[in-house]
Order: sequence, then C-alpha cells, then structure tokens
Amino acid sequence: MVVKSELKLIKNLQQKKYRNEKGLFVMEGAKAVGELLESGFKAYKLFSTGEELSGSKISQVENISMKELKQLSSLKNPNGVLGVFYKRPSARVDIDGWIVALDGVQDPGNLGTIIRLCDWFGIKTLICSNDTVDCYNSKVLQATMGSIARVNIQYLDLTEFLKASKGPVFGTFMDGENIHTSKLPNKGVLVMGNEGNGISEIIGNLCDYKVGIPQFGEKSTESLNVATATAIFLNEIKRRS
Amino acid sequence: MVVKSELKLIKNLQQKKYRNEKGLFVMEGAKAVGELLESGFKAYKLFSTGEELSGSKISQVENISMKELKQLSSLKNPNGVLGVFYKRPSARVDIDGWIVALDGVQDPGNLGTIIRLCDWFGIKTLICSNDTVDCYNSKVLQATMGSIARVNIQYLDLTEFLKASKGPVFGTFMDGENIHTSKLPNKGVLVMGNEGNGISEIIGNLCDYKVGIPQFGEKSTESLNVATATAIFLNEIKRRS
Repeated sequence: MVVKSELKLIKNLQQKKYRNEKGLFVMEGAKAVGELLESGFKAYKLFSTGEELSGSKISQVENISMKELKQLSSLKNPNGVLGVFYKRPSARVDIDGWIVALDGVQDPGNLGTIIRLCDWFGIKTLICSNDTVDCYNSKVLQATMGSIARVNIQYLDLTEFLKASKGPVFGTFMDGENIHTSKLPNKGVLVMGNEGNGISEIIGNLCDYKVGIPQFGEKSTESLNVATATAIFLNEIKRRS
Repeated sequence: MVVKSELKLIKNLQQKKYRNEKGLFVMEGAKAVGELLESGFKAYKLFSTGEELSGSKISQVENISMKELKQLSSLKNPNGVLGVFYKRPSARVDIDGWIVALDGVQDPGNLGTIIRLCDWFGIKTLICSNDTVDCYNSKVLQATMGSIARVNIQYLDLTEFLKASKGPVFGTFMDGENIHTSKLPNKGVLVMGNEGNGISEIIGNLCDYKVGIPQFGEKSTESLNVATATAIFLNEIKRRS
C-alpha cells in the first residue's frame, strides 16, 4: 500500500527544489532501478507491481497495484517498478584521463544523451555548472538509459573549478581550431556550452585551447546540437588514445 | 484574414495522411520559412503577423493577427510567420560522394538531428525507408533548424534502392568493424538502423561492409543513440576525405 505521505513526497520530487531539499530522486523501470542498486546508489523506498528487480538482493520492496503505481508515476505507461533514491553525495573530482564539463546546458534530452555518451566513451566524471539542468530530472533520467548509474556527476561553480584545474581546458567553439588536426593530450577537461549561446565569456577566458568541428556543408547551416557535438569530440579524443 | 477552409487545411496537415494526400506541409517561423523559399520550395500560402520574410521577394503574404496565427499554429508560442509549402517532388538519386540511408528511424527528434548533421557535413541526399518517420512532421521540421531546405530527402523502398545501388553499402552495427580503422572509399551509402532494433535483417544482408563505433566504457552500456552515432560516422567519413 502507498501511504499519503509517500504519494505526496514522490509528486514533490518531480520538482528540483524538493529534490535538493530532501536529497532524493525518483527512478522508474525495473532495469534502470536495478542498475542504480548495483552501482551503489542507496534506495530510500522501492515500489513494485510484482516485477522482479534483476541482479540485486532487495528486502524492502513494497508491493503495490498497477493503479497505485499509476498514481505515483510521471510516465504515461509506468512499467512495474519505481524507486526513490538518495542522490549521490558530492565527491572530490580527480582528473584522471579526460572529463567533460557543461556550461549551462538546458535541455534535459541533451544532458541525458551526454551522460550516455560519457558512459559509452568511458568518461568517469561529468562536471555541471550550477545552472545546468538537474540530472535527476525525470526526462534526463529517461534519456540516460541507465548510464547515470555509471557516470559520476557533480554540480559546482564551474569558474572556480576551472581556475583550480590542473589539466588543460579545451573549450568548444564554432570557430575553434579544427579538432581533426588538434594535438590532444591524454588528459584534460572538455567544456561544452549552452544550446543557444555556447560557452559563456567568463568560462571562455579560462580555456587553454579553443577547438571546433569543421563544417563541410553550406555556411548558412546552424551550429551542431550540443549532444551531437559532444559525440564527435569524445570520439576524436578516444580514437587517438 | 484566415478563411475557414484554410484553417481546416492547416489543422489537417498536422497528420501525415493529409500531407501525403495534398502534397503540402506547414513550416513555422520567419527564418525557416525564408530558408525554404530561398532554396526553391514553392509556397502554397504564407501568413504573417507583420514579421518580415528575410531575403526573399514575396508578393503573396496574407497579413493576419496574432490571435489568428495562434489558431493556425501547432506551437505554444507561434513566432510571426507560418507557411504552407508544396513537398519536394521525388527526384532521381545520384550517388555523388556519400549519402545516408535510414532504415525505419522512428523518433522525430532523431530524424531532425540527422537532417541537421547531413547539412553540416555536406551530405546532399538522405534516403528514408518508407517506414521512417515523415520528415514533414512538425517535430522533425523544428529539430532540423532549417536544414531541411538544404538536404534532398527521398522516401522509397530501401531494399530495392540498395539492390540497385552501385556505391558500396556500409551498414552500422554494434559489433561492426571499428570505424576508426576501417578503410573508407570516397563514396558510398551509410545505413543507420531503427532506434530499438537496429538495421533489419533484410537490409543487413544488402550491406557490403558492417562498421561500428568502439566502446570504451563498461560493457553494460546501452548502444549509442542513432543521431549521436550518425554524428560520429559522418565525422569519420569526412575527416578522411
């Protein structure tokens, strides 16, 4: 059974304000919830309509009806499992190899795709400026396809972080040096900018190198989407490592 | 003034069935409508709240109020201009350089992003299997950011097309040969598959080469999103040309 206070908590957790206040977030789906559990995220509460949670030993699962799950879920078609989790605590960021830093990325689908890309390319740490969209937003979580369990995501003051950073900082710009022919070290920080405005001036001034993806089509073409650009930069970094 | 029959037509054009029947589609926004006009798309009807249509000589623009535009528009915040256009007629497909072919891509955002990528990388022709999402869908048009004006998109029977194709066919697969080290000719067909199922068996059998993007993270990671994978493949093709 779902008690009223739990229903209210889960509804409230759709808002960033409450997620920050409570230090909790909601993940839906047996596979994604199972992956969080396996990667060490601590569950606050788990609900299931009978769906098995793969690969994990859970004692505290509340069995609920589909009708109850529909009340809790933010999905049109909830799929059997909903978990409330503690957010990952802040950790010290070590630059071991390459990391990615985002300067004000706003679209949940873009952030989710970038997390999935970090996972694919073995990028362990993703730094988000404080004004980047919240990675515990349900649309971001859906787009990550479970990758959030395998990438360490930290929100912080990006200016302070880059000032203190020891690895070289590579900012991505429309008119940056051609990434195909740039020299790339075996560690560094790759900074991706906001969808509309790119990298802000203050962050741009902290970049040691400015790199870009050459354009082969007509000059009237818009810039690349930030998630597809991240895909190309990470591929360039990894193909040479 | 907007007459009733026009209002009905524009509402109906939100459905693929009517777009096919009438051979028309709707584009919104001054910039995007201007780009279509400049690239030779023929307008059936243009509406404006007074917004200027950049870089084009239009005689037949119907001036309407914002209230009327809101009735016509599928956007929450319509932005001044709405055009009804004739779809691009079917054309013969020449393989001059590389082209991209899609086998059942379903997500409008993915198709829009892929069109934008083709534009960026100078891919002139995009072939879509008949079961690929309609490129004149409003969500696709929005995601292309105007690139639809510069890429020749043709829907056809992909099996027949590939059978008749003279250029080598490169299919993209999770377990394909590493694209970083594959030999790539200076022309060919790059085939991208459906979001959930990848390339269908029948199309897979028509591929001369199977290529893939190497994974650097943990093996439990999901495949890459089809749009980000297309970004990486096109970058690989172009960086070596």
